[in-house]
Amino acid sequence: MDVVDLFKKRKEIIGNVVTLEGWIRNHRKQKEFGFIDFSDGTCQEHLQVVYDKSLYNFEEVSKLLVGCALKVTGEIVKSEGGGQDIELKATIVELLGDCPAEYPLQPKRHTNEFLRSIAYLRPRSNLYQAVFRVRSVAAQAIHEYFQSNNYVYVHTPLLTTADCEGSNQMFKVTTLDIDKIKGKVDWSKDLFNKLAYITGSGQLHGETFAMAFKKIYTFGPTFRTENSNTKTHANEFWMIEPEIAFCELNGLMDIEEEMLKYVVQYVLDRCHDEIDLCDKFVEKGLREKLEKLVKSDFTRITHHDVIDILKKADVKWEFEPSYEDDIAKEHERYITEYFNGPVFITNWPKDIKAWYMKLNPDGKTVAAVDLEVPLSGELMGGSQREDDYDTIMELAKKHGVDTDVVDWYINLRKYGGCYHSGFGMGFERLIMYLTGVENIRDVIPYPRTPGSCEY
Amino acid sequence: MDVVDLFKKRKEIIGNVVTLEGWIRNHRKQKEFGFIDFSDGTCQEHLQVVYDKSLYNFEEVSKLLVGCALKVTGEIVKSEGGGQDIELKATIVELLGDCPAEYPLQPKRHTNEFLRSIAYLRPRSNLYQAVFRVRSVAAQAIHEYFQSNNYVYVHTPLLTTADCEGSNQMFKVTTLDIDKIKGKVDWSKDLFNKLAYITGSGQLHGETFAMAFKKIYTFGPTFRTENSNTKTHANEFWMIEPEIAFCELNGLMDIEEEMLKYVVQYVLDRCHDEIDLCDKFVEKGLREKLEKLVKSDFTRITHHDVIDILKKADVKWEFEPSYEDDIAKEHERYITEYFNGPVFITNWPKDIKAWYMKLNPDGKTVAAVDLEVPLSGELMGGSQREDDYDTIMELAKKHGVDTDVVDWYINLRKYGGCYHSGFGMGFERLIMYLTGVENIRDVIPYPRTPGSCEY
Repeated sequence: MDVVDLFKKRKEIIGNVVTLEGWIRNHRKQKEFGFIDFSDGTCQEHLQVVYDKSLYNFEEVSKLLVGCALKVTGEIVKSEGGGQDIELKATIVELLGDCPAEYPLQPKRHTNEFLRSIAYLRPRSNLYQAVFRVRSVAAQAIHEYFQSNNYVYVHTPLLTTADCEGSNQMFKVTTLDIDKIKGKVDWSKDLFNKLAYITGSGQLHGETFAMAFKKIYTFGPTFRTENSNTKTHANEFWMIEPEIAFCELNGLMDIEEEMLKYVVQYVLDRCHDEIDLCDKFVEKGLREKLEKLVKSDFTRITHHDVIDILKKADVKWEFEPSYEDDIAKEHERYITEYFNGPVFITNWPKDIKAWYMKLNPDGKTVAAVDLEVPLSGELMGGSQREDDYDTIMELAKKHGVDTDVVDWYINLRKYGGCYHSGFGMGFERLIMYLTGVENIRDVIPYPRTPGSCEY
Repeated sequence: MDVVDLFKKRKEIIGNVVTLEGWIRNHRKQKEFGFIDFSDGTCQEHLQVVYDKSLYNFEEVSKLLVGCALKVTGEIVKSEGGGQDIELKATIVELLGDCPAEYPLQPKRHTNEFLRSIAYLRPRSNLYQAVFRVRSVAAQAIHEYFQSNNYVYVHTPLLTTADCEGSNQMFKVTTLDIDKIKGKVDWSKDLFNKLAYITGSGQLHGETFAMAFKKIYTFGPTFRTENSNTKTHANEFWMIEPEIAFCELNGLMDIEEEMLKYVVQYVLDRCHDEIDLCDKFVEKGLREKLEKLVKSDFTRITHHDVIDILKKADVKWEFEPSYEDDIAKEHERYITEYFNGPVFITNWPKDIKAWYMKLNPDGKTVAAVDLEVPLSGELMGGSQREDDYDTIMELAKKHGVDTDVVDWYINLRKYGGCYHSGFGMGFERLIMYLTGVENIRDVIPYPRTPGSCEY
């Protein structure tokens, strides 16, 4: 039996005898009896296991340390103590796996830095139990949102020989024994007869499936070679990239807003204890922030009008707002505070955005949209895609894209093309938003960052 | 409106005027009217769009070719013709995206080989609409099975610097400009200060999370460098790897059986037309096979007893069955026919299985299990994991595993270890089983095989 199912039945299970398996998270012993803080990891809440001298192995049990794996049998009874409504009165406590005193994960506050150094043990701690369960539940929320709205989940390839996104941002991949090669590498001897890369986006492939299934999404790992040691960058992360045929920018914003609210509500409904813990120890006011988001109307405003507001603001900017440039972190923060909620910023200067974005009639901006959320900044980025064959050919050439390599992508505009849009959301950014955790290393099971690829 | 939602309302929607966007899959024109086989890709069934001379642009519409993107408005009416119960009587037909006569995907039977050469267009064909929708629905079935049974979905890392699985089976990954290097490569200058690989399994990392959450699963892309051009091998594929604490081999088989039946039933319930199409054009008897699986009891038998049966069989084997060896394809086929259903084969000779599998008391076999299904052969492989510290240290050394590199994995046996088990299922094998498609290249959106990494 899983402890989570026991807690779901809570009242009605009182008086039943159950057998559970799990671990000691804490242990208070007294002369005549003891209390074990017991968890099997299936929920945030721990079960109190009480035992006394009636156990035939009382002496052995009372010596067990934090981390031990146990099998316990006993009656579920109403708890007299504070802090819990039910507890297990043990009649049998059997040791399954011992744990020594030098176990690194003791029940005290450790720093996140220390916990990263024992990444294989940290998911047993309260905070990481919460973070990684929220991660799992949020992933399911995303799948359920898209599947229930007729989207097809597409597994776009990670390996590619097309370096259309700029190969300097992509990992190279090879089966050759490079250390043994003398002189120039003969890539034709590689597994794919060419140098291959790991792609940084499934969007182009995703569009080909949107032209067949109307609505698709990807959800998979993504890689960037950025040599940047910040709180928000990792070299391996997960991304969601939906792509929708017959959808323009306003429709795309409707979808982004609906999806985000769905995911947040889903997590609020299913991760009550996890959000409480993060609210208490990570980000004060987290629950209120999330509940507010679900009820809010997202503002929609052009990049131009955002710059107007920033210029008029009585603030000394570190970075001067400009109609031609991207906005900085300080601007993102100001604008979400200004509107007191999430803000869609649309119609960005074309030169700072990707080559496939739809050119607006003004010839200067593209139909792109970034979603900024309070406290976290940019959460999603999307656009309508250029659907005119001649225009996209021109844009590709202007951006130095090899059109021979992506002829299949460009051909979508020739064979029953249509207006369509899509967006990308970094999954870790979402988890950081949902938990308040500020360092991306703490929401990824085994983070990969420059100089660090441990485990 | 999505066409799938229209069909769901079928009868009640008759008399309503709707606007739809989608593509021409076929077009029959006559002098006074025309019939468009219309699909927006949200379901297998196409909608018949009927138009006549009352259209202001009748002449233009009647010239539209297969592949064009359209917006149509009209009344849903009862269909007089055979083959469909409702149809759309168009009052407006607007061309959104033209398609020329040289469009490669004409409505006739193409070979799978040809369709692979237009992988970016093939999802628009009936067969691939079915295959990739089944793929999406089956993925969701897997998530729903595990999530509803208290499993945590874990994103194990793909990049690793630990070559514990044998680096000759893994892709090397680098950010160095290898072509420009003269002499020996200095891997310390690489992004991770070491040579990195793409892993071929998330199991070891998965186990660390099972020791925290009791039940976890992974579902993500996996890579193998095998230079093998067969119908069942790809260099990039997706895999599911659940890992369960406090679970021995019999419990593992219970889970495998329950999960497979759940997924098959889920697909039968939601992909009626897709399974019908595959039954008709790909594998005769497919539906019956799937329906039978859900109702069957899976046989459980040891490898030793399987060899007994094979030796007694009145068959001239190409490969002689042996108590010390793996079984061949011909044996798999025989044994599922012999038991007329799926068969779990347990307790394999230790020398042909992985180093971390639990040694049985006989000292000769390990607590491993393969699931063989009729027609497809091996679908899942799993085992109980060795949970004794000294034994796994010994096994690791015997198999040449660098125990310094996987000390964290081995340490799980020291810090509250417990008996636990897990299995792996290749997702493509499942899709081939569910659709009857025989070549793995035809169930992956963009397959990667030796010499072939197109798109």
